[in-house]
Amino acid sequence: MTTPPPAQHLAPLADQEFLRCFNALSQIGATPGGGVDRQAGTEADHAARRWFDEWLRERGFATRLDAIGNQFGLFELVPDAPWVLVGSHLDSQPLAGRFDGAYGVLAGAWAAARAVEEVHLGRVRATHNIAVVNWFNEEGCRFSPSMMGSAVFTGALPLRAALETKDTTGTSVRAALSASHAPLGDYRPTPLGCYAEIHVEQGRELESQGLTIGLVAQTWAARKFHVTVSGEQSHTGSTAMADRRDALYGAALLIAATRELTERREPGQLHTAVSQVSVEPNSPVVIAREVRMNLDLRSPSEQLLEEAVHALHVDSGRIAERARVEINLELSHAWGLMDYSEAGLSLARRVATESGLPHTEMMTIAGHDSTNLKELTPTVMLFVPSVQGISHNERECTSDKDLVDGLAMLSALAVELIGGALTEPSEP
Amino acid sequence: MTTPPPAQHLAPLADQEFLRCFNALSQIGATPGGGVDRQAGTEADHAARRWFDEWLRERGFATRLDAIGNQFGLFELVPDAPWVLVGSHLDSQPLAGRFDGAYGVLAGAWAAARAVEEVHLGRVRATHNIAVVNWFNEEGCRFSPSMMGSAVFTGALPLRAALETKDTTGTSVRAALSASHAPLGDYRPTPLGCYAEIHVEQGRELESQGLTIGLVAQTWAARKFHVTVSGEQSHTGSTAMADRRDALYGAALLIAATRELTERREPGQLHTAVSQVSVEPNSPVVIAREVRMNLDLRSPSEQLLEEAVHALHVDSGRIAERARVEINLELSHAWGLMDYSEAGLSLARRVATESGLPHTEMMTIAGHDSTNLKELTPTVMLFVPSVQGISHNERECTSDKDLVDGLAMLSALAVELIGGALTEPSEP
Repeated sequence: MTTPPPAQHLAPLADQEFLRCFNALSQIGATPGGGVDRQAGTEADHAARRWFDEWLRERGFATRLDAIGNQFGLFELVPDAPWVLVGSHLDSQPLAGRFDGAYGVLAGAWAAARAVEEVHLGRVRATHNIAVVNWFNEEGCRFSPSMMGSAVFTGALPLRAALETKDTTGTSVRAALSASHAPLGDYRPTPLGCYAEIHVEQGRELESQGLTIGLVAQTWAARKFHVTVSGEQSHTGSTAMADRRDALYGAALLIAATRELTERREPGQLHTAVSQVSVEPNSPVVIAREVRMNLDLRSPSEQLLEEAVHALHVDSGRIAERARVEINLELSHAWGLMDYSEAGLSLARRVATESGLPHTEMMTIAGHDSTNLKELTPTVMLFVPSVQGISHNERECTSDKDLVDGLAMLSALAVELIGGALTEPSEP
Repeated sequence: MTTPPPAQHLAPLADQEFLRCFNALSQIGATPGGGVDRQAGTEADHAARRWFDEWLRERGFATRLDAIGNQFGLFELVPDAPWVLVGSHLDSQPLAGRFDGAYGVLAGAWAAARAVEEVHLGRVRATHNIAVVNWFNEEGCRFSPSMMGSAVFTGALPLRAALETKDTTGTSVRAALSASHAPLGDYRPTPLGCYAEIHVEQGRELESQGLTIGLVAQTWAARKFHVTVSGEQSHTGSTAMADRRDALYGAALLIAATRELTERREPGQLHTAVSQVSVEPNSPVVIAREVRMNLDLRSPSEQLLEEAVHALHVDSGRIAERARVEINLELSHAWGLMDYSEAGLSLARRVATESGLPHTEMMTIAGHDSTNLKELTPTVMLFVPSVQGISHNERECTSDKDLVDGLAMLSALAVELIGGALTEPSEP
């Protein structure tokens, strides 16, 4: 009897099937620019959820929902054994790329199916069950905050607050989810053994190093602010310049200053951005009385991040005086450098090495559902390269080769995980 | 027989009635902050139109609408004689002051009523008819462009284009007007003899000089642009700073540069502003791919304005390079220094002098319905002071004394106008 081939050596035909399947998923909510627009709880998101439910059931997974619309596909291998959870999210930003999240869900589903097949063929002995998950509303564009489904799952966000969150038209998460493919449930994979997720990098570190797999060891630290700039309405023409208290001018100076914080630093040491701006009353011929916006600062160094936050407050005071406005910086999210499971990282490193996949340890700048999950259970987070680092953009791309190599990596990892590699001693 | 008293010496009781009447009008669409919110074609605007229609009919005016919803109150004194038109607008910006426009309409109505009374009492011989007008949508906040009703009236804007204009929710002017107090008509005061309008200054020139009446001789020159800043969507966190093409950053630099153009000039030589900003996709965690905004430059010197426009283009090119975005400045409106009728100005100067009202010639920085009308017919434009120059703001204020002095001025002017002072030789 020959040794079974490792997962990444499965016939290329199977990889072609995966790519074909991924292309089919990418048609749901497809945009003319080659991306997708599947904001959480919209018809396009529901269509993706229905499609995924059908895909799972056709392959023998039992499908369940929880109370915030997280979607599970279950394959029980050992009654009452802990669950290995693998997944990501199918929702997207507006005019987004087709890989962000969706690749991780589909690769998770295929990896689970391949792992189950290994068990059924008698090549692997399972000590765990396996479930795929599509976390609800990772993007947070329609309903804030982001990573909502996984945050409710881990207890970081109360269910009721999440369900009552409204979009700008007044539709609640509860109402948006009522149009899902099935009634909300109360499923929870119990006991939970571990979590794994694969995602596109959304940066260009892997590409620039010519590597295939990123083994995420840590998150960047971040500080996010809700900013309110308060001025006074007046006439854009007739008001004397010296009398103006233009909230938009104050906001503009702060947006520029936020960007310029990064110019005092080496590349890769500080990332800053302002997004989601609302202007009141946003009428022609009227100077804005109020501008609200999101502002975030991220860094791989906590000390440098603190320095940047301090500099931001100094800039903000100077700008408030110059534009004759008030600026309020309300800290909405703050996290430090957070480690992923050391055991998970070791396991992933071994799997990548044995699979012959060029890899490196790295940090994640973006938040992911795994950022929540790692607080609850041993978690492995993997990256595949993003062409030119482009993300949250219809032109987001990962090569077919990287997609199938990532799937091979995740499949091999799933085989290890259902064998208990992360929850039991890996050497008996 | 004694000489009849000039209009401004009418019993204070009548002035109190006017102020009481103005306060009643100010209750329509009143805001908690002491202002009004009566955007064109909204229920609050319609309520003001109904109220005004009733006010006019109770006092013997015949009321008519034209095809764009301009509302006329007619008092025929001499069949087939030319019409003296007096008015302004009842619509407002969001959270606006209660004086802007509304004062001019109501003062126009009272001035017309007082002039008619003078005729009926046999103190004045009329050679003209008199009509009050409430121009539809002067503010342009809900439906762009501003000064819509008067532009259609003068032929500067095609009726059909105006009726088909939509607000951000897709409601057309035609649909919004269908809820007016009466069906749209096709009335037009013919022949038209002249136009007069009184308005709050919206600046602080009269106040700072301690004067009551501004005699508007000229408009400032203006250039208005629709600006589009085009960048590329990407992730606010994971995208390398050097890779970003952040449309919001580019827009912020341009907003700041637009303001700073004024800092190279003496006060009162250049006014600039940016308003009505839209950001795409305006999602958290996404760098903007596009920002659109209105930008305007105004000056009492055409040469200086041209220099400022040139500087703006230079700044724009520099900013586009720095932020790695494209900036398109599309000129949407341009006007030079425009004179009001010299005969109208002389007449107004004489009336103010005879009425004992301290006055000065001045320019208007803001556009008004009279800016359109003066292209069609001899036009007199008057200002009363604005406390601290505050306008387009709930705190907009004009003192009771200035309100009734302005009414006295306009009443005396109306008496002259129905006597043919502007369309016939004033000395027989």
